[in-house]
Amino acid sequence: MERIEQHASWGGRQEVWKHASSALGVEMKVGVYLPPAALAGQACPVLYWLSGLTCTEQNFITKAGAQQFAAAHNIILVAPDTSPRGEGVANDDAYDLGQGAGFYLNATQAPWASHFRMEDYVTQELPALVAKHFVTTGKQSIFGHSMGGHGALTLALRHPGLYQSVSAFSPIVAPSQVPWGQKAFTAYLGEDQAQWAAHDAVALIAKAQERLPLLVDQGLQDDFLDSQLQPGLLEAAAKASNHPLTLRLQPGYDHSYYFIASFMEEHIAHHAAYLK
Amino acid sequence: MERIEQHASWGGRQEVWKHASSALGVEMKVGVYLPPAALAGQACPVLYWLSGLTCTEQNFITKAGAQQFAAAHNIILVAPDTSPRGEGVANDDAYDLGQGAGFYLNATQAPWASHFRMEDYVTQELPALVAKHFVTTGKQSIFGHSMGGHGALTLALRHPGLYQSVSAFSPIVAPSQVPWGQKAFTAYLGEDQAQWAAHDAVALIAKAQERLPLLVDQGLQDDFLDSQLQPGLLEAAAKASNHPLTLRLQPGYDHSYYFIASFMEEHIAHHAAYLK
Repeated sequence: MERIEQHASWGGRQEVWKHASSALGVEMKVGVYLPPAALAGQACPVLYWLSGLTCTEQNFITKAGAQQFAAAHNIILVAPDTSPRGEGVANDDAYDLGQGAGFYLNATQAPWASHFRMEDYVTQELPALVAKHFVTTGKQSIFGHSMGGHGALTLALRHPGLYQSVSAFSPIVAPSQVPWGQKAFTAYLGEDQAQWAAHDAVALIAKAQERLPLLVDQGLQDDFLDSQLQPGLLEAAAKASNHPLTLRLQPGYDHSYYFIASFMEEHIAHHAAYLK
Repeated sequence: MERIEQHASWGGRQEVWKHASSALGVEMKVGVYLPPAALAGQACPVLYWLSGLTCTEQNFITKAGAQQFAAAHNIILVAPDTSPRGEGVANDDAYDLGQGAGFYLNATQAPWASHFRMEDYVTQELPALVAKHFVTTGKQSIFGHSMGGHGALTLALRHPGLYQSVSAFSPIVAPSQVPWGQKAFTAYLGEDQAQWAAHDAVALIAKAQERLPLLVDQGLQDDFLDSQLQPGLLEAAAKASNHPLTLRLQPGYDHSYYFIASFMEEHIAHHAAYLK
């Protein structure tokens, strides 16, 4: 890991690191916010943020306003890029497939399978790197936005015990049933829709081994609400399985980081309660 | 004025407006944050933000995290672009002259004089537009960053009574004495350095008619500290003239919006006390 950016922020330090990723076979960048307690040498828990389509590690660290709340709760924030990138990595001209659109799963289909292994990266390689380079309590949680909300929900549901808590802003809750997910899953996982259910939060809830409470905020002025997000599908699935879900529909809010920033304080407080 | 962006934010609304500017002779964009009280129809005071070199109206509204504090204090935030722009507007290949680098003065020299009239725009045209389109108390204050910190300080010092309060992050306090200012002032105001003093905060303090207290935060890891900013010159000038100045040197902080965001709460609280 090599530190390529550092900025004092709310008494702590916002850093960006780059490192060779064995899971992805490329160099990756990741934002790391160290709260004041971490700079003072205290062990802190880790909260992972997964960004949405087209984002890099920069969007969250510059726009979400999360550092002040991570500082208050002594939480390390880790925000990776959304996919492998580079000339040797498969890509697509569209914004919703390929580089910038990894969907937090391990692709099984050509030409994606050789690099697009974001599930292994986020759940295995990155936590190991974080534990090696920073002083952590060993406890970790996860949240994200849109495609990253899908990532947070599915990785938490697929890996019981790995995260203390999970939350999402405007998540793609049922990728198997909406255009963004159908396109990405067809490319990364193939035509067999039986494979898709394993990466679909609504489908996963039905067989969840762990009743990890889900906190979801969704803006009602979100342009993607009906076409891509459909939080009602998550609500119905949670109800059918008696899975704890707090779904908050926020009038007036859209899909942007203005929405995310407005409710960041409550999400970080939610995770802080579980990470203690 | 035509609204071209709107996003719910912290119970209020972040908007971007465009309008034909008579002062500048071009179309301008300006960010306007309306706190919850403004959306409810209450008159609110206005706090102007002036951005630094290369910025547009977007930098502050996406990165400063100011909306939450403006919401708490019921203040309207107005953040204009940093210069006239467009094909018919003079420019320079360098980042620190021409478009994106208006320096908040009225240029007197060709080819700049025809459009670069940011002082008239910020102190006259924009407040008139704001008063016409929003419900305000009539009270206003001003703050800014770097070139915009220079703008806030010099506009407040040049226009006694116009602003209730003024503050700055990492301001260019003595443009006549540093490369950024010398280059811009030579281009915009000409070789006669007697003209420069009228737009130089350190020179203006010596003859200030109004003892408006100055609040200035400066990061000590700022790459431009010694070459372009030199807050010690402001400190010495304020001391010599017995002008009230609170200069806070912040260890570890750099020139970025991470620094600005970290102390935004205190700056807005400072202005709120004067805007009541």
